[in-house]
Amino acid sequence: MIDREKLKNDLAAVREKSPLVHNITNYVAMNFSANALLAVGASPVMAHAAAEVADMALIAGALVINIGTLDAEWVQSMLIAGKSKRAAGGVVILDPVGVGATAYRTETAWKIIEECRPDVIRGNASEIMALLNADVKSKGVDSSCSSDAAFDSAKMLAERTGAVVVVSGEVDYVTDGTRVETLRNGSSMMPSVTAMGCTASSMIGAFAAVNSDVFEASLHAMALMGVAGEIAARNSAGPGSLLTNFVDTLYNITGDELVQTIRQ
Amino acid sequence: MIDREKLKNDLAAVREKSPLVHNITNYVAMNFSANALLAVGASPVMAHAAAEVADMALIAGALVINIGTLDAEWVQSMLIAGKSKRAAGGVVILDPVGVGATAYRTETAWKIIEECRPDVIRGNASEIMALLNADVKSKGVDSSCSSDAAFDSAKMLAERTGAVVVVSGEVDYVTDGTRVETLRNGSSMMPSVTAMGCTASSMIGAFAAVNSDVFEASLHAMALMGVAGEIAARNSAGPGSLLTNFVDTLYNITGDELVQTIRQ
Amino acid sequence: MIDREKLKNDLAAVREKSPLVHNITNYVAMNFSANALLAVGASPVMAHAAAEVADMALIAGALVINIGTLDAEWVQSMLIAGKSKRAAGGVVILDPVGVGATAYRTETAWKIIEECRPDVIRGNASEIMALLNADVKSKGVDSSCSSDAAFDSAKMLAERTGAVVVVSGEVDYVTDGTRVETLRNGSSMMPSVTAMGCTASSMIGAFAAVNSDVFEASLHAMALMGVAGEIAARNSAGPGSLLTNFVDTLYNITGDELVQTIRQ
Repeated sequence: MIDREKLKNDLAAVREKSPLVHNITNYVAMNFSANALLAVGASPVMAHAAAEVADMALIAGALVINIGTLDAEWVQSMLIAGKSKRAAGGVVILDPVGVGATAYRTETAWKIIEECRPDVIRGNASEIMALLNADVKSKGVDSSCSSDAAFDSAKMLAERTGAVVVVSGEVDYVTDGTRVETLRNGSSMMPSVTAMGCTASSMIGAFAAVNSDVFEASLHAMALMGVAGEIAARNSAGPGSLLTNFVDTLYNITGDELVQTIRQ
Repeated sequence: MIDREKLKNDLAAVREKSPLVHNITNYVAMNFSANALLAVGASPVMAHAAAEVADMALIAGALVINIGTLDAEWVQSMLIAGKSKRAAGGVVILDPVGVGATAYRTETAWKIIEECRPDVIRGNASEIMALLNADVKSKGVDSSCSSDAAFDSAKMLAERTGAVVVVSGEVDYVTDGTRVETLRNGSSMMPSVTAMGCTASSMIGAFAAVNSDVFEASLHAMALMGVAGEIAARNSAGPGSLLTNFVDTLYNITGDELVQTIRQ
Repeated sequence: MIDREKLKNDLAAVREKSPLVHNITNYVAMNFSANALLAVGASPVMAHAAAEVADMALIAGALVINIGTLDAEWVQSMLIAGKSKRAAGGVVILDPVGVGATAYRTETAWKIIEECRPDVIRGNASEIMALLNADVKSKGVDSSCSSDAAFDSAKMLAERTGAVVVVSGEVDYVTDGTRVETLRNGSSMMPSVTAMGCTASSMIGAFAAVNSDVFEASLHAMALMGVAGEIAARNSAGPGSLLTNFVDTLYNITGDELVQTIRQ
């Protein structure tokens, strides 16, 4: 079970320390992820130039690599940044968007895993399953499986890579291969807001920048995402309102409100 | 006149089948277009790497090519994806953003038309006129002409290219060179939301993925865009609210509400 | 002090003339900046291809160069566009996002200053200070200093470059090295909306396109940004709402409301 005091402490720490989170992320997610990080109190930076990613990764509290709109040059920068961050002992989070949809995505994700050894891998069920089984085909970037179906894959992926693996969906799973935590907050409307998963990965970056236990940091970030989405959805007529209310909720939510709303 | 039962069927089919729509689109539009497609029930994917666009185009129900923020590498990927989709018998939609503003845009649009033979070309009046007349100068990406002025150009372009041509504006025109349909919904505030036209092109992709008659699919998508914009504008204090309400309306609108609001 | 009649005239002129503003800006800002420019009545275009930026810059009323997500190819296009615009006697605005965070950003900003000689440089306090003092380290793209601390740097930078320098923050400063104007509007929530500063730079582009006195144009654009942010914040529960309300306010604000709300 989640330690509610530690969760409150991490939220307070993000707000107080305003950690720099370096995102090499996709074009669709950039604006929303930046606004979500700012709303929670973190300081996002998006930078992808080969000439600066190593420098930027080193001054950041965490590096988030997201392959949503990858291409050859961006992948090169992801590898430079990830290896630089890894060599310096920093935290690397990987979001393998759309793995399984094309061979290029699957190959690239594994290249990043092998060369950068990410501390955390977060994806939807299809993505986590496709990383381990080339026969699983993702439908673009949206999941065609429930997160329950990816439970075994998540544990295997954690064992194989040494990363904390997060599967997000109706139920979120966080595992390091041994420990498993579930989170049952959220709203059925959340998958209708683009880049909600990408933003969860960036949020893990913010929490990992203030808590060196990446399992706890991942769990806490996912708890915040689910609770904020659930609270925001209460007053949202649709996914457009949800986007706006979600950012407002990240800005306003108290630690007490957060821990009281968690369902595991 | 629009067939209201067919329109309702197409909206229901998009929601039920959740077709994958592959967008190679501009940086400004990506987030909004993705949210609009998700709200209506489709599954958007943005992918532009030369290494994967052919694969992605083939698993998608439609390919939308939008040159809004084109450059040499992206144009190469547009051509690879478009030719791959065309060779496989799939649907290709072209949005020639800003044609007429620079020679590069006009040359690129024609190159895509000739090599990919799009099924649908959607633009504003200036863009459609500029495709046929090099003397028409677009002012950037916003139209400086009314859609009425582009009526003859639209028919000529349809005849010359074999594509269904859609001119969006105060009145929308959909033509295959022979048939012409008009749509008179919308709001004067819609041109103040960036990427509304780009999103219309992506919406045509969603409908063309469930209805192989691209004339009908284009007409139905444009009807939904106009009606949703008109309904959303009723409660919008400005274009910021309109953006939010438009996405909510796409999510909530019923088939009956849609057909009852259409004005032709 | 600001000349309130001139400010009202400039706002009216932007709305009437709808100037084309060519932005070579970052991926995070593109959508929001485009919506803000449309809301105030201007016509934004985002274009970065080396093959067209010189053409696009020449038909635009102003060119805004923003290095927020720079890379080698984009910097090349920024230089082509900026030199073309400068050679033709047009207006160039530079937003040196994240200068001081990496050596690459600082070097690039100075290269653009030297080769394109921008008419206006707008940044936050850290950025303006870092341009003059390599020992000032920015924390990513958010300022770690108050704008007061950058006051002397702003005047020195204006003297050294010949540009009007704008420092935005709790207090905004506009200076040409001799004249200094302050603006005290805004909201503490504004820094929690990503790309608010980038949008201020684009807004200066819109005003500089209708007022050839770039000092006045910069002052008027910053006044509008601060007042619109302040008004929008009154009804905003958080930065998500603020983003929406800010765009609505730009669309609806009258000249009288604008001048009555200014605090200097």
